[in-house]
Amino acid sequence: MNGAALSTDLYELTMMAGYHAAGLVVPATFELYARELPAHRSFLIAAGLEQALDYLENLRFRPEEIQRLRSLPGLQGVAPDFFEEYLPSFRFTGEVWAVEEGTPVFPPEPLLRVTAPLPEAQLVETALLACMMFQTSVASRAVRIVEAASGRPVVEFGARRAHGIEAGVYAARAAFLGGCEATSNVQAGLRFGMPVSGTMAHSWVMTFADESTAFQKYYDVFGRRAVFLLDTYDTVTAARRVAASGLKPSAVRLDSGDVVTLSRTVRDILDAAGLQETKIFVSGDLDEWRIAEMRALGAPIDAFGVGAALSTSSDAPSLGGVYKLVEIERGGASAPIMKLSPGKQTYPGRKQIWRLFEDGMAVGDIMGLADEPGPSRGRPLLKRVMIEGRREFPPQPVEELRARCRAAISHVPASVRRLRDPDQYPVRFSDALIDLIDRVSHVSMP
Amino acid sequence: MNGAALSTDLYELTMMAGYHAAGLVVPATFELYARELPAHRSFLIAAGLEQALDYLENLRFRPEEIQRLRSLPGLQGVAPDFFEEYLPSFRFTGEVWAVEEGTPVFPPEPLLRVTAPLPEAQLVETALLACMMFQTSVASRAVRIVEAASGRPVVEFGARRAHGIEAGVYAARAAFLGGCEATSNVQAGLRFGMPVSGTMAHSWVMTFADESTAFQKYYDVFGRRAVFLLDTYDTVTAARRVAASGLKPSAVRLDSGDVVTLSRTVRDILDAAGLQETKIFVSGDLDEWRIAEMRALGAPIDAFGVGAALSTSSDAPSLGGVYKLVEIERGGASAPIMKLSPGKQTYPGRKQIWRLFEDGMAVGDIMGLADEPGPSRGRPLLKRVMIEGRREFPPQPVEELRARCRAAISHVPASVRRLRDPDQYPVRFSDALIDLIDRVSHVSMP
Repeated sequence: MNGAALSTDLYELTMMAGYHAAGLVVPATFELYARELPAHRSFLIAAGLEQALDYLENLRFRPEEIQRLRSLPGLQGVAPDFFEEYLPSFRFTGEVWAVEEGTPVFPPEPLLRVTAPLPEAQLVETALLACMMFQTSVASRAVRIVEAASGRPVVEFGARRAHGIEAGVYAARAAFLGGCEATSNVQAGLRFGMPVSGTMAHSWVMTFADESTAFQKYYDVFGRRAVFLLDTYDTVTAARRVAASGLKPSAVRLDSGDVVTLSRTVRDILDAAGLQETKIFVSGDLDEWRIAEMRALGAPIDAFGVGAALSTSSDAPSLGGVYKLVEIERGGASAPIMKLSPGKQTYPGRKQIWRLFEDGMAVGDIMGLADEPGPSRGRPLLKRVMIEGRREFPPQPVEELRARCRAAISHVPASVRRLRDPDQYPVRFSDALIDLIDRVSHVSMP
Repeated sequence: MNGAALSTDLYELTMMAGYHAAGLVVPATFELYARELPAHRSFLIAAGLEQALDYLENLRFRPEEIQRLRSLPGLQGVAPDFFEEYLPSFRFTGEVWAVEEGTPVFPPEPLLRVTAPLPEAQLVETALLACMMFQTSVASRAVRIVEAASGRPVVEFGARRAHGIEAGVYAARAAFLGGCEATSNVQAGLRFGMPVSGTMAHSWVMTFADESTAFQKYYDVFGRRAVFLLDTYDTVTAARRVAASGLKPSAVRLDSGDVVTLSRTVRDILDAAGLQETKIFVSGDLDEWRIAEMRALGAPIDAFGVGAALSTSSDAPSLGGVYKLVEIERGGASAPIMKLSPGKQTYPGRKQIWRLFEDGMAVGDIMGLADEPGPSRGRPLLKRVMIEGRREFPPQPVEELRARCRAAISHVPASVRRLRDPDQYPVRFSDALIDLIDRVSHVSMP
């Protein structure tokens, strides 16, 4: 990632310089989490860790970047040794604990905990939030959409609606991780080993003087792999043309109109022509609500294509994630830290989350302190993934993360997962954490 | 842009291969536009053209990319010469017309028009939409937010909420283009020559055993350039500490609580200490509505910091942009093309937009055909920016685009620009376009 070190807010650099000047290169711990669930979410799916660790491992200030920083008006006043000694040899040397990608989490549970010398831990705030929170929001939406499709495949094709080319690639990764069957994004598919799927666009059909020729010409190249788009002029007429053509496309796509009614008509036309194996694929501004409705009405739809709802997490385009100082070494001892701003309090101390299971189902989480023993049968969710700035494990294939996500979400009660009026999943604070909050909130007003 | 050629939907590649196989390497014209305004928008600001042109100029398939494409299941059936001859020598060789960045546009007016051999024009759909529509959505939001601040500076600091690192950089560019004063994003500021601004985070204050020391230590480095964050523990107490300190920070920042009331109290405290020149900077989940309310209440706030509302265009995170075939050469002559799908019709023919002015104010646009003369005093908005795949002009500094945007938006009636119940800006179709739509819609059902 070229220039990754500069992909940060200026205040991270001013504070780094300040810590350096004040001799505060002491161990500090930050935690990254969403303060609360957005509307229409009853859980989040942790995602984006792989890219966050890539970023941390490769973080360097190149000489020309340091020169440019030096010229910034906002960094005037900083002593030369910051630019001449500290930044040139800068590496991220910290320890990272994280929830594995694909794991359901419930705010305010931390997804990531960084312990590193204060300036290092500070610098990485902006990029870690951008990497992790975006993919987390997309993966969370994907799980909802995939559940709504209740067993029918969902294909992500939101690249064109994503916030730029890179965002499209990571959205595809997160959507697949959350349970999508494939992506239309070629770059993402090749990079992450995900199935790539495609149909045809209206422009193909419009290019030819008539629709039957358009279908035939596509079939000439792709044969039974072809998917025909039916709604360029009139969906039912197009279906009749397919039926009369003698071609056997793998699927047809409906992209507009009353697709519930159309899917029934088209199914009948195809079946009558002996095209029982030709599937019906539906797209066009879909989300979990529209898909759930189509499924409830029993429409004969075999697969769904979803764009902006996935690639922009359109109903919750940001999660309000934060990255907060929870502990710092002061006078040689660890001091737990807490912010008291109204509505924006933080929770002190390094934390762990324990998930409790009964009969194989998750029944609640305990958020406690990392150094307490934790409940006897609780499964700890935060694991060490980086030590001294190096990954502890090689990257896992997204296919495996996806399988883990499927398994983990199946252990969350259906009442928590349902789209409408979901139950709130119980997250309790441990006694030790409650005691610490109480203690720190009474002394930390300096 | 490494791998940019693969940053596309699979169907663009299957169609390219199909056009190639069918001998359809004929000139075609596509137009890029938003079908309609999203809720809470009465105009869009064209942005992202620079990145779109970069993408087009540098589009290449590298040998290793072609090898990987060849292995994709979705491209089986494609003849070898597509991989062995067509893709290795592929370049974008087309002509592009576009609305200049910073210009207000009104759907369904095209922002961009591409004329190129059909496979080239098809491939670029996905990336052009992702580049242009994202920046357009952010720039449009920025104009609204800047207007709400009615003369007080707005600083963009949404990098952490953006959809990844790259999205944060382009959001910063678009927000500045739309009128923001500065960005917190160091990478974006250095790359595009924009002012970079920073304050301090809560972690700075929490790092020190007491708040007064935290302020003093920051001042030690940055002196009168320093901005102090007041709400870590209690805003009013913090303001009193600043007043008692003898320090003269350039500003203080309020980030939570009832900032209207707090700003008055803090202003009084600072003024009483002779700190009339210390500004009050406000942040914390701001958008145009909250800023307008603070301004209406006369709160003594000197500047605003805005995050997710800008970097994710949170209330309209995607614009539903489309890129549609409008003309193709068929049998040696240009054929206008139109899609009839219900609710998703397109408009045939290559277009131009003319903006009409009265007394210096824009009073309406005419969308017509590129080859008609247009209204006598109308100003054409689409200009040729690329010919034979090469830019016609060097990139313009974003500072200049920003100035153009300021000027252009000032010519849009205030009644169209206002936040609440804006008037609809009139966009009429020319008689020639209406005739063409009528003609094509009666014959184009093949």
